Amino acid sequence: MRIGVFCSGGDAPGMNACVRSVVRGATSAGHEVVGINRGYQGLVDENLFLDSLGEAKMSARSVSNIIQRGGTILRSARCQAFQTEAGMQKAVETLEKFKIDGLIAIGGNGTFRGLNELVERWDGRVIGVPGTIDNDLVGTDYTIGFSTAVQTAVDAIDKLRDTAESHERLFLVEVMGRHSGYLALYTALAAGAEVACIPETPTDIPGMVDHLHSLQQTGKKSIIVVVAEGDELGGALILQDKLQKAKCSFALRTVILGHVQRGGSPTPDDRILATRLGDFAVRSISEGATAMMAGEINHECVLSPIKDSFSKRKELPKEMIDLLDRMSK
Amino acid sequence: MRIGVFCSGGDAPGMNACVRSVVRGATSAGHEVVGINRGYQGLVDENLFLDSLGEAKMSARSVSNIIQRGGTILRSARCQAFQTEAGMQKAVETLEKFKIDGLIAIGGNGTFRGLNELVERWDGRVIGVPGTIDNDLVGTDYTIGFSTAVQTAVDAIDKLRDTAESHERLFLVEVMGRHSGYLALYTALAAGAEVACIPETPTDIPGMVDHLHSLQQTGKKSIIVVVAEGDELGGALILQDKLQKAKCSFALRTVILGHVQRGGSPTPDDRILATRLGDFAVRSISEGATAMMAGEINHECVLSPIKDSFSKRKELPKEMIDLLDRMSK
Amino acid sequence: MRIGVFCSGGDAPGMNACVRSVVRGATSAGHEVVGINRGYQGLVDENLFLDSLGEAKMSARSVSNIIQRGGTILRSARCQAFQTEAGMQKAVETLEKFKIDGLIAIGGNGTFRGLNELVERWDGRVIGVPGTIDNDLVGTDYTIGFSTAVQTAVDAIDKLRDTAESHERLFLVEVMGRHSGYLALYTALAAGAEVACIPETPTDIPGMVDHLHSLQQTGKKSIIVVVAEGDELGGALILQDKLQKAKCSFALRTVILGHVQRGGSPTPDDRILATRLGDFAVRSISEGATAMMAGEINHECVLSPIKDSFSKRKELPKEMIDLLDRMSK
Amino acid sequence: MRIGVFCSGGDAPGMNACVRSVVRGATSAGHEVVGINRGYQGLVDENLFLDSLGEAKMSARSVSNIIQRGGTILRSARCQAFQTEAGMQKAVETLEKFKIDGLIAIGGNGTFRGLNELVERWDGRVIGVPGTIDNDLVGTDYTIGFSTAVQTAVDAIDKLRDTAESHERLFLVEVMGRHSGYLALYTALAAGAEVACIPETPTDIPGMVDHLHSLQQTGKKSIIVVVAEGDELGGALILQDKLQKAKCSFALRTVILGHVQRGGSPTPDDRILATRLGDFAVRSISEGATAMMAGEINHECVLSPIKDSFSKRKELPKEMIDLLDRMSK
Repeated sequence: MRIGVFCSGGDAPGMNACVRSVVRGATSAGHEVVGINRGYQGLVDENLFLDSLGEAKMSARSVSNIIQRGGTILRSARCQAFQTEAGMQKAVETLEKFKIDGLIAIGGNGTFRGLNELVERWDGRVIGVPGTIDNDLVGTDYTIGFSTAVQTAVDAIDKLRDTAESHERLFLVEVMGRHSGYLALYTALAAGAEVACIPETPTDIPGMVDHLHSLQQTGKKSIIVVVAEGDELGGALILQDKLQKAKCSFALRTVILGHVQRGGSPTPDDRILATRLGDFAVRSISEGATAMMAGEINHECVLSPIKDSFSKRKELPKEMIDLLDRMSK
Repeated sequence: MRIGVFCSGGDAPGMNACVRSVVRGATSAGHEVVGINRGYQGLVDENLFLDSLGEAKMSARSVSNIIQRGGTILRSARCQAFQTEAGMQKAVETLEKFKIDGLIAIGGNGTFRGLNELVERWDGRVIGVPGTIDNDLVGTDYTIGFSTAVQTAVDAIDKLRDTAESHERLFLVEVMGRHSGYLALYTALAAGAEVACIPETPTDIPGMVDHLHSLQQTGKKSIIVVVAEGDELGGALILQDKLQKAKCSFALRTVILGHVQRGGSPTPDDRILATRLGDFAVRSISEGATAMMAGEINHECVLSPIKDSFSKRKELPKEMIDLLDRMSK
Repeated sequence: MRIGVFCSGGDAPGMNACVRSVVRGATSAGHEVVGINRGYQGLVDENLFLDSLGEAKMSARSVSNIIQRGGTILRSARCQAFQTEAGMQKAVETLEKFKIDGLIAIGGNGTFRGLNELVERWDGRVIGVPGTIDNDLVGTDYTIGFSTAVQTAVDAIDKLRDTAESHERLFLVEVMGRHSGYLALYTALAAGAEVACIPETPTDIPGMVDHLHSLQQTGKKSIIVVVAEGDELGGALILQDKLQKAKCSFALRTVILGHVQRGGSPTPDDRILATRLGDFAVRSISEGATAMMAGEINHECVLSPIKDSFSKRKELPKEMIDLLDRMSK
Repeated sequence: MRIGVFCSGGDAPGMNACVRSVVRGATSAGHEVVGINRGYQGLVDENLFLDSLGEAKMSARSVSNIIQRGGTILRSARCQAFQTEAGMQKAVETLEKFKIDGLIAIGGNGTFRGLNELVERWDGRVIGVPGTIDNDLVGTDYTIGFSTAVQTAVDAIDKLRDTAESHERLFLVEVMGRHSGYLALYTALAAGAEVACIPETPTDIPGMVDHLHSLQQTGKKSIIVVVAEGDELGGALILQDKLQKAKCSFALRTVILGHVQRGGSPTPDDRILATRLGDFAVRSISEGATAMMAGEINHECVLSPIKDSFSKRKELPKEMIDLLDRMSK
């Protein structure tokens, strides 16, 4: 087979590890690999990855020493052109021109919506691999990049805790997550934060203030509130304002972590997940699978229909929300 | 209830997060907590954790700001005295004197053997929580500390790879694991190492040299071989010698990571696992469980007989060994 | 002597290392040390550090295992009460009540203004130690905390560069520095940023856009602009807006690092500087110095009048600004 | 001018930052740059760095995004062939063949001895830049790589301290430094170690044991002894043996940090020093300097005769040794 591979959407740590795995898994099995630069845009523009000899081919050496790098050597993009019928036709032409039989796309739900369109216009096989820091895709316990984003956010909060303790302050820390509270909840649990404000649960300001005041009476010196950017009351700055108006007695400060969460050397977990899923995607596609997403559920590699990944809502584990409450003392 | 908690055996990152969780989970449910210093030794010596007022009691404030710290505020030890009948009797007397009804012990298989003895001599309830970097305990997918140890080893290899690439060398990196290859295998996968030498599989020197030479011919500049200290051929220095004798054409260097692997701020994974299991241990013990280990299997908290944890052998996933082979190109 | 020590103003990484050094340097020389909590506020409130026996005394053991911790065990505060004559009188009474002969204050220019007032109202000796991430104090090459703040900002930009390269973007990164460009300039140099916008030099938007476009034509894929919060055109968000209006052809994103820069485990440089200056402050005060700041110039410990530290302006090295220009290619 | 640049000897973090600076400083001034792979070996073998078009030329783009990487893209080597007259002649021929007028070599004292030989056989100009983790070169306050090596060693000891405290142990930590105690002494100061054993001072075992026992009596739970590999009594394992025989009452463990110290992303200090010295080397060579080493003394760039760098002994600051003693309480 001749397998194409690209990254699309917001970059996520571990994408490089996944590209490496696709290339090595495929060449181990005797397939050829073509890298496409800048996601769908590269399909529209015929922008292919060239090796050191200038050939549109990826070999084991093309992916040496990248498992530990953030970002992606194939670059990524959000592509407007592909949203049009003409763009999609152009992408199909590129796939045919370069005789690609199977396509592996690493990205999030926007990427997978695109794959779904492609499937209806192209005969080749298509597999998605979940690469996004949001962990908002059904069909896998964790997405590639989530573990590193939690690590980055927790590292930042560990630093803020030093100042919070020294100055007896409350910090509101905004993390990514427009529609999902996964990143906020896991960050809060691991950082020992007192509160997580997430889209999945109502944020009750008077209740929160009462709780924080009761903590203060037990001698608590500092408070960390983790806020998902998609919390239904708004981001951290809006919450700071509401807490002030509700007469919260702590001195308040807000930090918005922003794009730092997308970068950095991937954690071992993300590298292993990416390696496993890339290899599994190659084996699946060569066995005939198509229109599926490769995921890991209960430590097993599994396929699920690509449509499920963006049409179904991934639930947050209620147990973890309760656990945070019990720890907030 | 009055719950005692201690750490025992080699320390593991996340033990503090687990102590915090036991204390907060227990006090949330209305129980009292007594901390015992230095594991079984503290039971033999009546060495209890004193709060800032000098009382033998742990409150939510006793465990503030420790979730991110390596080591353990309760200290740990390997205790000779407890190995004798007299020592065990003394430990039982201490438990009775301080009116402890339930005991939660965080440690590895030595710790759990001790619990098993205690169960036969004491009426109270006993729960073990798996805290060891070796991940060698049946009854849980991962042990507390394993994730951080992998991270530490991978960080070290990322640094070595810089030198290995610059100087075109092979590094043998010895990691902990006297009886288990988990740490070596996961480190190798995440670090992009070419070979893992582990107790579970035979190490074939001529085959390895052939493989390395074939990699060299494809242009590979550097090689990383991760060696479990318990590999059946011996540690990394012995392997270096054998590779030299087998005329391996790479320049060889050995690094033994040593105790650095036991320390450091725990990863988010270890903090969350520790938090979950500490809280689950409290809930289990208050519901009547005893002689069980609290573990996490397929993301669910589960209890299993404490005896299983040290009498059964935890298998390495064969799939991961094969995956490493396919990536080693 | 009986030496008092406190931290005041914004916390800075290395304050703990400095407190440790004051305590150990003083006790080595036979002096007693009293810790004051929360800066001037603690003097006003008689809020002293108590050791494990409840005594208002710091011993070598009080400062064990803190050299690596961010924040400060003495806590810090900005004190309103001390700004009044009554507050200052109360502080003097506390110093006399506890028979303190010498006072060592770790902080920035606000702290030193306070010391200057104290000197006029109290007979004891007074030494300041420069602890602030801003490096804006005359009388020392570097202040305690600056090195760590640069490290934190550079780490963040290393992560952003991954995304910037993958998405071919320009990131504006706002760092602290209301009146000084030190942090922005050193961060930019170390992070390989293309531009630093600082209060000391005019920010020329059309010139910057021309320069960035010329870089783009040489194949440059990503741009990092470091912005001091005190840049004369305003912070990073205002600059983003101005760049957009000036038709900058890169996709623009802004990240505001915020309080994360104040925390974290101090770098070796900050730990050594803090250790050296704390010890030097003790030796100076015991030899009779007063109303001076302890600093390090050309690797030598030196004293300079405390008034200079806040009344004179510290110049940025012009050579470093030119160097950044030559590297921006 | 046409400037050649290479790295030689043991790699040091910051070498890439220095190569980047040489290339950008030179091209800013209108010079051409040729990269030589693998140090002197590349001169002997005509092994030049090729850009993406296959030309033996380095441009600003050749060094994009490397300031943060450990190792060196030019690779490094210790070269036997250059030790012979024939090898040196071959190197001179290569320099002439590629019309190189000036050569900038980044490395340690072995590298500079080589430059000294070259100067006698070749008409071009020659400048050395100090790149070695040992900080053992006269003519500069610090060498490129030293700061990062200290950081790596201190990070490791911070982790070991967790275990040392938890288990009440003494760790001997061996760091690099065959002839110089700089790395050991600065690591010890920054890590809060109790003792540094270095080549420059006699190691007195009975005195050390007495001191450690007196610390133990003040309640000290853990001890860190940093040992330079070149300490006159031998490395850490020999010292462990001697301490045991001298009846040291702490439980002893040894960790040998090894090659990990050479790798890793350079600290901001190393990046800035490397950037400054690379640029200064270019300006010096274009102004006619030769047979000199570029260094930084008291924050100023200075040239000193290349012979001094390896023929004179760099003294350790006695003041820092005394400071460590006062802190060891």
